[in-house]
Amino acid sequence: METHFIAGEWISGQGHDVNSLAPYNSEVVWQGHSATKGQVELAVASARHAFLAWKKQTFAQREAVVLRFAQLVKDNAELIAQTVAKETGKPLWETRTEATAMAGKIALSIQSYHERTGTKHKQVAGNDVTLQHRPLGVLAVFGPYNFPVHLPNGHIVPALLAGNSVVFKPSDLTPLCGELAVKLWHDAGLPKGVINLVQGGKETGIALAESAQIDGLLFTGSANTGHILHRQFAGQPEKMLALEMGGNNPLVVSEQFGDIDAAVHTIVQSAFISAGQRCTCARRLYIPEGQGGDEIVARLVEVTRKLKMGQPFSEPQPFMGTLISRGAAEQIIVAKQTLMGLGAKALLDGELLDHAFVAPSILDVTDIAELPDEEYFGPLLQVVRFTDFAQAVELANNTKYGLSAGLISTNDEQWQYFSDEIRAGIVNRNRPITGASGDAPFGGPGASGNLRPSAFYAADYCAYPMASIQGAESVFPETLSPGLQFD
Amino acid sequence: METHFIAGEWISGQGHDVNSLAPYNSEVVWQGHSATKGQVELAVASARHAFLAWKKQTFAQREAVVLRFAQLVKDNAELIAQTVAKETGKPLWETRTEATAMAGKIALSIQSYHERTGTKHKQVAGNDVTLQHRPLGVLAVFGPYNFPVHLPNGHIVPALLAGNSVVFKPSDLTPLCGELAVKLWHDAGLPKGVINLVQGGKETGIALAESAQIDGLLFTGSANTGHILHRQFAGQPEKMLALEMGGNNPLVVSEQFGDIDAAVHTIVQSAFISAGQRCTCARRLYIPEGQGGDEIVARLVEVTRKLKMGQPFSEPQPFMGTLISRGAAEQIIVAKQTLMGLGAKALLDGELLDHAFVAPSILDVTDIAELPDEEYFGPLLQVVRFTDFAQAVELANNTKYGLSAGLISTNDEQWQYFSDEIRAGIVNRNRPITGASGDAPFGGPGASGNLRPSAFYAADYCAYPMASIQGAESVFPETLSPGLQFD
Repeated sequence: METHFIAGEWISGQGHDVNSLAPYNSEVVWQGHSATKGQVELAVASARHAFLAWKKQTFAQREAVVLRFAQLVKDNAELIAQTVAKETGKPLWETRTEATAMAGKIALSIQSYHERTGTKHKQVAGNDVTLQHRPLGVLAVFGPYNFPVHLPNGHIVPALLAGNSVVFKPSDLTPLCGELAVKLWHDAGLPKGVINLVQGGKETGIALAESAQIDGLLFTGSANTGHILHRQFAGQPEKMLALEMGGNNPLVVSEQFGDIDAAVHTIVQSAFISAGQRCTCARRLYIPEGQGGDEIVARLVEVTRKLKMGQPFSEPQPFMGTLISRGAAEQIIVAKQTLMGLGAKALLDGELLDHAFVAPSILDVTDIAELPDEEYFGPLLQVVRFTDFAQAVELANNTKYGLSAGLISTNDEQWQYFSDEIRAGIVNRNRPITGASGDAPFGGPGASGNLRPSAFYAADYCAYPMASIQGAESVFPETLSPGLQFD
Repeated sequence: METHFIAGEWISGQGHDVNSLAPYNSEVVWQGHSATKGQVELAVASARHAFLAWKKQTFAQREAVVLRFAQLVKDNAELIAQTVAKETGKPLWETRTEATAMAGKIALSIQSYHERTGTKHKQVAGNDVTLQHRPLGVLAVFGPYNFPVHLPNGHIVPALLAGNSVVFKPSDLTPLCGELAVKLWHDAGLPKGVINLVQGGKETGIALAESAQIDGLLFTGSANTGHILHRQFAGQPEKMLALEMGGNNPLVVSEQFGDIDAAVHTIVQSAFISAGQRCTCARRLYIPEGQGGDEIVARLVEVTRKLKMGQPFSEPQPFMGTLISRGAAEQIIVAKQTLMGLGAKALLDGELLDHAFVAPSILDVTDIAELPDEEYFGPLLQVVRFTDFAQAVELANNTKYGLSAGLISTNDEQWQYFSDEIRAGIVNRNRPITGASGDAPFGGPGASGNLRPSAFYAADYCAYPMASIQGAESVFPETLSPGLQFD
């Protein structure tokens, strides 16, 4: 199986077997072999070689390739949506939005290139003063499995626009999606070697991150892996490391939550969209004690219980599909059992079903004195009841992460307070916290990343500035500095 | 001696003795004791406490304090210039430019705050979409000795504008300059604890960098220390680390160098300004073989030999003062001897004089097959003769650093080639490579930093973005997502 794309050629992996299973029926959808360390080095060398010519192309030339890619994404939107659905188990209606987002990213990345980096000229005192931005070189892109084409695309497009070359390693849970994206780049006419694809798991990833010949690594994935990478890059400040990690995201509901069904809708979309597999999903829900709070919890449980789960291509379509793998599904059950052991009460006790299906759970964790500050990446929502709004905000901030946070409240003063106090990169009001504006930066403080926000600010970490002061010739000054003698 | 400023009080250090000597006569200009680890923690705690109120001030309130500081810098420009001259041994005419640059930084930092970070609002599909930027928290600022007020000021001003609080540790070679800057902040009415000053050397620096309660560290200094800090921060991606380190900066002279004295003037200002103690100073000079090259080398040696050295307050003023310390002066002599041992030929053999005075040296290092890739931070220029322009550019790039680089050439095609090929953050033509535009970003790739450019881009590393989508109330959608049932 020729599943690696190196220097413009599809070649076979020489490492161990990699199989990608459809998580809703466990059928094999992709088979290959991982890239060995030697093959990873070949891919990096290919990118290094291609970089020399690619960086010399004009921005307009690089932009033209990227725009052809955008057109191919649009032309193949349904293929992309179906491929993502097949490999991730997400429903087709949802994966169709991923294909759209992927194409939409292109125009935003071009705009961001010019606004955040780009080129400026001016004249100051007879000098040309120029600011340009230069590519870093070879960038490794590590993709996640939850948005297996859109999220790596958010690194790859800005990287290529800026003139970098890329070695892309998709998650070993979504190799087929990665392969499809790279095929589209090839079809778009990207020169050989400018993007390279290596497939594999941890070993392949370590080999790529360790390569002396990469100039940076753009990562979207777990906090655990991100921290390992940060330690791996210690003492190499010259290598760009952009980490987009997870969150333990709080959603606070005020007593003044407005229409109950509208509020519950916002909660459900925050917690259970993509079966809870978005890095921005609400993990902790703060609900006031008392009748209003009781009612909203009861309605939330009722609506969540009725969420339709099913295979990605079923008609009518389900709200939720599977988790990414049986292993991930089992981990969510372990997390639930851990919380129950600590004193959580199940308001909705979702079970492990066949393949990678897990029904959603809602746990009341109010009585757990020290709630574990973990990201449970699935349909597992923790509810905390509170009596005092300020205390709820303090509890919401009680996390090492800081990706997203939200408030459901019709009270403007509460929003002002929340917005001032909360520590997160995405802070929404009365809207699902899984929603982020594509033309805004994306990323949060704390263990959610390394303060290299992506999305609109991705341009920042794909280039370094080069500032010039220029004159057509050296000038002998009218007045010399003190102590300088030419005669 | 009450030399540490913590929580708005001047207190005595409890660590070892620190003496600052005027490097031109070895008189003691400042005496104190270093901050102990406990005192460092007190300073950080003071900053943490003050941060809570400071971040809640409006931008206009913080800006007002910063503008009062700017006025005090102008009012005290001569005191600043004299203090820097006394403690660094740089001539007064030059330190006067530092006081001016320091005041000029304020307006640029305000502009940069708004352009690079700041706040944006818009309406999208009935939602308010807002982008704000939030302070990181407590930032440690490590100052260098070569521009002991201007360079830390380039971190401190953006940090304060964004709403951070600061613990400032000046170089232990310039404690008096650091103390003066903090006194001006106090006089400007900065609230207690928003800036704290700790004095000391390596131990104090380690204690501050290791403090669990800092949110970041902004460093200007040696590559060696910067790399140690990068390793120290491993596994803590959430802490902002901005490293501005050195360079081994090349200046390439074409056969078409134009007027010889103008070219030599550009070289001298690149290599020997501040006695070679600027991070952007030319360290390697590439000169063509042949008669034109011979002539420029001869003229360079002649002019450099006549550079006037002297005490900072002498009249008439010298071009160069001392190095920062006797130790630094001795190190430059060791570097020269090392290069001579490797086969360098002295074109101008500057000697170690009394106190921290070192006369400039120019060495022909063409015959050294493997030139050490070191930053020699003083008046020591290495000349390499070349036969082919492209080869000279390749040699110029043969460094792990990438801070500044320059070309002296009247040939536009050569400039285009140079500008395309050279790898550096500051790339000047026919102008001293020690010149950088204050409204441009500053910093280079490679071992010169960690790709967090400062100056105009300092705003970037003093804040994180917070993006919000807001509605006055939750909305129940007209069309529900598939699989979602409320009835």
